[in-house]
Amino acid sequence: MTQNETPDIIVSRLPVYLRALRHMHAQGKHNTSSQELGEWVGVSAAQIRKDLSQFGEFGKQGTGYKIDFLIGKLSEILNIERVWDVAVVGVGDMGHAIARYQGFRDRGFRVAMLFDNDPAKIGETIGSFTVRDGAGMISAIQEAGIQIAMLCVPAAVAQAVANQLVQSGVKAILNYAPISLTVPAGVRVQYLDPSIGLQRMTYYLE
Amino acid sequence: MTQNETPDIIVSRLPVYLRALRHMHAQGKHNTSSQELGEWVGVSAAQIRKDLSQFGEFGKQGTGYKIDFLIGKLSEILNIERVWDVAVVGVGDMGHAIARYQGFRDRGFRVAMLFDNDPAKIGETIGSFTVRDGAGMISAIQEAGIQIAMLCVPAAVAQAVANQLVQSGVKAILNYAPISLTVPAGVRVQYLDPSIGLQRMTYYLE
Repeated sequence: MTQNETPDIIVSRLPVYLRALRHMHAQGKHNTSSQELGEWVGVSAAQIRKDLSQFGEFGKQGTGYKIDFLIGKLSEILNIERVWDVAVVGVGDMGHAIARYQGFRDRGFRVAMLFDNDPAKIGETIGSFTVRDGAGMISAIQEAGIQIAMLCVPAAVAQAVANQLVQSGVKAILNYAPISLTVPAGVRVQYLDPSIGLQRMTYYLE
Repeated sequence: MTQNETPDIIVSRLPVYLRALRHMHAQGKHNTSSQELGEWVGVSAAQIRKDLSQFGEFGKQGTGYKIDFLIGKLSEILNIERVWDVAVVGVGDMGHAIARYQGFRDRGFRVAMLFDNDPAKIGETIGSFTVRDGAGMISAIQEAGIQIAMLCVPAAVAQAVANQLVQSGVKAILNYAPISLTVPAGVRVQYLDPSIGLQRMTYYLE
């Protein structure tokens, strides 16, 4: 299976290529080259050609890539031709922002459930959602068959909540809490930690 | 200069190592190995040794790394032994969350100013801040000498605001808007786009 053969570092670049291609498409462009795409995303043209060649032949020497075709192919490879339901856990400031975030539209995701343990928040309405009691989280996620969660709880409880998510069948956690999580094999974690992005840039500042 | 010699892909891993080391330190650990650190962050021990060797000799064969020493060295390399002031632009849901985010504490950053163009938001108090009029943003950032901004405005205006930030002297932009930004050489952009993190994981889901 391709999943087992392709290094995750290559997989990590595909969503970035896809975002740039969608942006080009929104601007009315129809074709691009590995050179142009590379300039958009800050990766060499050779790297882009090498990355894409892992999955097939998507462009032609000299004429480059048809943007809508490549968007379709990358969406297929990334499994986002469907819409994935996502559970948001922890409805503090960040959870609120995520619940109302418009950026998931057309990108393969839909917030489906919100959970919190705070009695003051349970029952609260955010957009079209009612915040559910975290005590019922495991069974609710299991019943809905949800595989993706966003973790927006404080760092001190993030590991405990992650353990519950794993128990409920979640296979992919986007973690906003500024700590590293330990999860069993077969479960993936990605981090959205603004300090990491900032520290990567302060390296270059004086 | 080291800045010009070290590949950015290596720089990108240093904050992740640092976060893991700080977490180990908080748990009371004093020493670690490239093997153990690698397991925490999902990178091979050989890669960690190779990455760190770019900057000096920080550990000893057999005994590994002293955690507090390595934290100090990485903080020094990443320029976060000081505290950087950060301007937050766009005080919607995400800007609100960022303004009150506790995760910057001790990690080298401090939100210093909030801006918005919406008359309904200008003058609003969030935590210890008053939201300022975006019309005065360029001069305010220039006067304060702020080099880092977080961009939390809608995608449709993100490029225009980024241009203003560049004009005001900002050298590092953490972009929450789900679009790719074009900036001149010498200015860096990092993206916090939850869809990217999610799409990297759906690749592995069935």
